[in-house]
Amino acid sequence: MTATAEPRVLKHQALRAQLETLLDGMSVGDPFPAERELAERYNVSRETVRQALRAVLLEGRIERRGRTTVVAQSKVVQPLMIGSYTEAALADGRSASRILVGLTQHTADAELAAALRIAPGAPIAQLERVLTTDGYRVGLETTRLPADRYPGMLDNFDHTSSLYAAIMARGIDFERTEETIDTTLPDAREAALLTVDARTPMFLLNRISYDQNDIPIEHRRSLYRGDRMTFTTTLRAG
Amino acid sequence: MTATAEPRVLKHQALRAQLETLLDGMSVGDPFPAERELAERYNVSRETVRQALRAVLLEGRIERRGRTTVVAQSKVVQPLMIGSYTEAALADGRSASRILVGLTQHTADAELAAALRIAPGAPIAQLERVLTTDGYRVGLETTRLPADRYPGMLDNFDHTSSLYAAIMARGIDFERTEETIDTTLPDAREAALLTVDARTPMFLLNRISYDQNDIPIEHRRSLYRGDRMTFTTTLRAG
Repeated sequence: MTATAEPRVLKHQALRAQLETLLDGMSVGDPFPAERELAERYNVSRETVRQALRAVLLEGRIERRGRTTVVAQSKVVQPLMIGSYTEAALADGRSASRILVGLTQHTADAELAAALRIAPGAPIAQLERVLTTDGYRVGLETTRLPADRYPGMLDNFDHTSSLYAAIMARGIDFERTEETIDTTLPDAREAALLTVDARTPMFLLNRISYDQNDIPIEHRRSLYRGDRMTFTTTLRAG
Repeated sequence: MTATAEPRVLKHQALRAQLETLLDGMSVGDPFPAERELAERYNVSRETVRQALRAVLLEGRIERRGRTTVVAQSKVVQPLMIGSYTEAALADGRSASRILVGLTQHTADAELAAALRIAPGAPIAQLERVLTTDGYRVGLETTRLPADRYPGMLDNFDHTSSLYAAIMARGIDFERTEETIDTTLPDAREAALLTVDARTPMFLLNRISYDQNDIPIEHRRSLYRGDRMTFTTTLRAG
């Protein structure tokens, strides 16, 4: 059985390679040529230009600023690791901060209670923040903590600081995390919070962190912009 | 600084939760109610139904079969690990196969040559296959091998079998891989090969595998359907 699609290079793929070469010679913030100019320069249709530009946009090589398009900063490359997003960004030589979306009280439903090994209906503190790197809104992180375990911790919490560090300061170590990694599209609210259009593919990471006694610390849902983030990992045999 | 988007639950999000509850009580292959029926049953607009259905579709809970929509098999859950895709699928109790797209000869450009530590212009054997699980086309894998290192290996290669196993049979061990993980949208050709619409978010994994002597074995580009795949990983401190 042989698949039938032709392996030939499509026009927009060829143009995409040419645009990437063009970008290699440009600097961050430089204005990128307009659609019409590119169509003339490479002798292709406006539709071919649009398809190639869309690919380069999702790759994070260019970005829209109002009606103009400029060369974007390179994507944030982040190893899959325990610890906070911002610590990894700082290690990468970037500035990182957080914007508070909400700090709310809930009760655990059956699923969350099972994951955190607490009683259904137990109080949950939910912290939702936008993560920024070098001024870009790159992620939306929702952390759910068993409130009884961290009394008062969030009362005077600096919302721009690391929650991971605040938990560690209580003598709790992050020993292990279990992650699932999906891709998804943002809903309208998420797209607004992350200043992306709703067709931008996103990473969706769901994590349970465990401490040195194998007790669940937190459930964390992280939505990361696919046009701004690359994850890396090293896998070893055995 | 506080983000301004309201944390309220949007109509389509509320409906999505209701549809997920509905799906919990249904079986794989069951026909899913039509848009109009859902709009009447939940007393919402057709547009709200469409948004909620799109989310449930990208989650992989439902799938289109021509003009009808049915309950889909659960997503393939695959640990990030060394080894072949199909071995992981079989370990998960699923059937897995491959469809040949192309086996072609190329020469290494500067970037690929550096990654594989071979001379620019050296011969490259490129194997492109669609990966299937339980009849779904879930991924598109393009492997580039330094042809001089594996003389004749692909001449009589069974294209439905594991390339990983064929390389191992030559006494080469997969010791370590370096991966990058991105999200992207498929281009027209990729969408056709994977029978998805071009708005389906995809995982894009680029991998270099190294042997027991730290010599690069292969470059592998894997595109996986985001509506069919969930990756998992366990991270440990230190």
